[in-house]
Amino acid sequence: MSKKVFPLAYYYDGILSKNRIVLAQAISLAESNLPEDQTLSSTLITKLLPHIKSSFRLGITGVPGVGKSSFIEAFGQTIIDAGHQVAVLTIDPSSQLTKGSILGDKTRMETLSKNKSAFIRPSASGNKLGGVAHKTREAILLCEAAGFDFVLVETVGIGQSETLVKSMVDFFMLLILPGAGDDLQGIKKGIMEMADGFVVTKADNDNQTKANKAQADLQHALHLFPAQANDWIPKVIQTSVITKKGLHDVWEMLATFKNHQTINGYFEHNRQQQQIAWMQEYFQFLIESKIANDVTLKEKEMGLKKSVAAHELTPIAAATELFQLFLNKK
Amino acid sequence: MSKKVFPLAYYYDGILSKNRIVLAQAISLAESNLPEDQTLSSTLITKLLPHIKSSFRLGITGVPGVGKSSFIEAFGQTIIDAGHQVAVLTIDPSSQLTKGSILGDKTRMETLSKNKSAFIRPSASGNKLGGVAHKTREAILLCEAAGFDFVLVETVGIGQSETLVKSMVDFFMLLILPGAGDDLQGIKKGIMEMADGFVVTKADNDNQTKANKAQADLQHALHLFPAQANDWIPKVIQTSVITKKGLHDVWEMLATFKNHQTINGYFEHNRQQQQIAWMQEYFQFLIESKIANDVTLKEKEMGLKKSVAAHELTPIAAATELFQLFLNKK
Repeated sequence: MSKKVFPLAYYYDGILSKNRIVLAQAISLAESNLPEDQTLSSTLITKLLPHIKSSFRLGITGVPGVGKSSFIEAFGQTIIDAGHQVAVLTIDPSSQLTKGSILGDKTRMETLSKNKSAFIRPSASGNKLGGVAHKTREAILLCEAAGFDFVLVETVGIGQSETLVKSMVDFFMLLILPGAGDDLQGIKKGIMEMADGFVVTKADNDNQTKANKAQADLQHALHLFPAQANDWIPKVIQTSVITKKGLHDVWEMLATFKNHQTINGYFEHNRQQQQIAWMQEYFQFLIESKIANDVTLKEKEMGLKKSVAAHELTPIAAATELFQLFLNKK
Repeated sequence: MSKKVFPLAYYYDGILSKNRIVLAQAISLAESNLPEDQTLSSTLITKLLPHIKSSFRLGITGVPGVGKSSFIEAFGQTIIDAGHQVAVLTIDPSSQLTKGSILGDKTRMETLSKNKSAFIRPSASGNKLGGVAHKTREAILLCEAAGFDFVLVETVGIGQSETLVKSMVDFFMLLILPGAGDDLQGIKKGIMEMADGFVVTKADNDNQTKANKAQADLQHALHLFPAQANDWIPKVIQTSVITKKGLHDVWEMLATFKNHQTINGYFEHNRQQQQIAWMQEYFQFLIESKIANDVTLKEKEMGLKKSVAAHELTPIAAATELFQLFLNKK
């Protein structure tokens, strides 16, 4: 990855003039772990904030094999046909290790990646999932400042990143693979309840009966959950990237959602809450980083945790000891 | 509330000699917000830790009207009949305001409160739910040091405290009121998935048909959730405090659970994880308290949150600014 860093004005002007090479460089800057890069990136984004226009942030998740790439490839075109500029970002905490998905992303959405109205960015890498989240949130803002008014955040279905994606999007969508009856078994606890909408994929040919059953099962399961705080009733839509069935319905659902949530004020409310939560998370991240990067603090923390797990020390006594040391390590 | 504070040895000796008046005083000490009381309490509990014998911690929740008090009154006797000493603690974040539930607790479990093998403690009070949780966790340890080997933590069903109770018990039980078909609608998102067992209350007389339906609905809903990490399959049991139906079955379920979890190692693993999580939460609590108790920090935080919500400042820039000020406010 290039370590080249440019002056603030270069990034600022480049992004506002919708230069996608500069956009990619700015995202790399945001992803950098160097303190000076982080400061520059933070300054850049604060400067860009007033230029961010109205946008829609869609989170997409689903188990491996559900057809996320194919769906995004097809639905991305639907979004573009509706007159939007779409950016696709991926949260993949495993990419640091495998590096595999970066190449994968490039080839996965071949048609979409060639479209002038689309911008596809492989996963942010990071040692910690929390760090990845901050970087993805910054990437969202950078894409929006560069004129992409529809940001799609995709997560690999490994069960950890869904909550993070939920915390940074307006609409959280779960893709469902029609299966052999136990359709919902593969979904991790709590994920289903977070979804604003469900998309049953591969609802074509031999799969149609299974797709019908998956949809019916989901509709039934939804009755078991109480209403969402935002007064939105999640919908279940069957789609096929082969026949294009349902793609327009998904688009309609999102449009209805945005309209509904804007009228009841929850759209902006949700964004504000997300921003404040992000600030709190980042503050927490700075605290944790300070401990992680200080040998004395780190060793003390590990020792205390060991004593606490062995029931030799109360958690309160241990936390107080660590806190005192933390304050003295200015 | 009495402000009387005694020397360490008074609490230590009193608790080890199972003096319940001293136990109540020690819990009051743990609940105190005075820093010197908190230090004394922390020292006391650390000193008592080696004396804590094997115990079982049961969390109970359910919507108002489900019959929690009646169930605890009846099931508490089942626990005592099995040869145990039972302590009942309540988490009620609203008690600070109403003060009503304290009197309520005393009269609610009239028979149990007179039993020599039972100790009933009204809710810990606190300004913040997080603070209440720390105090309840300390109260659990104090009760256990005083020989109560079965601790029952009850939460009022207001939807916020369940997660906290879950984080401090071995088994989390949800009481279900048989209703008119929509039995599960009143349960807050995610609560159902946290439960290790379900108890359908009031399964007697005219309610029997409804109870059967509630049980069947729950059994069905459970199929929709994936297996728990601890490899335990939640059970659904019908009970009646009038006919005593099911009380022994609930006891059997808990015994089976403890045996199962001890063999697979998850019982101790879960406790260790809870202790470490508590340490992390308390560290976080100390950080937040420092900000809350410092006018400059508090005002800065509020101003930054306002700017972040207004999209004038990025959350990262805001958190970094607050963090720098925090470090300088040694």
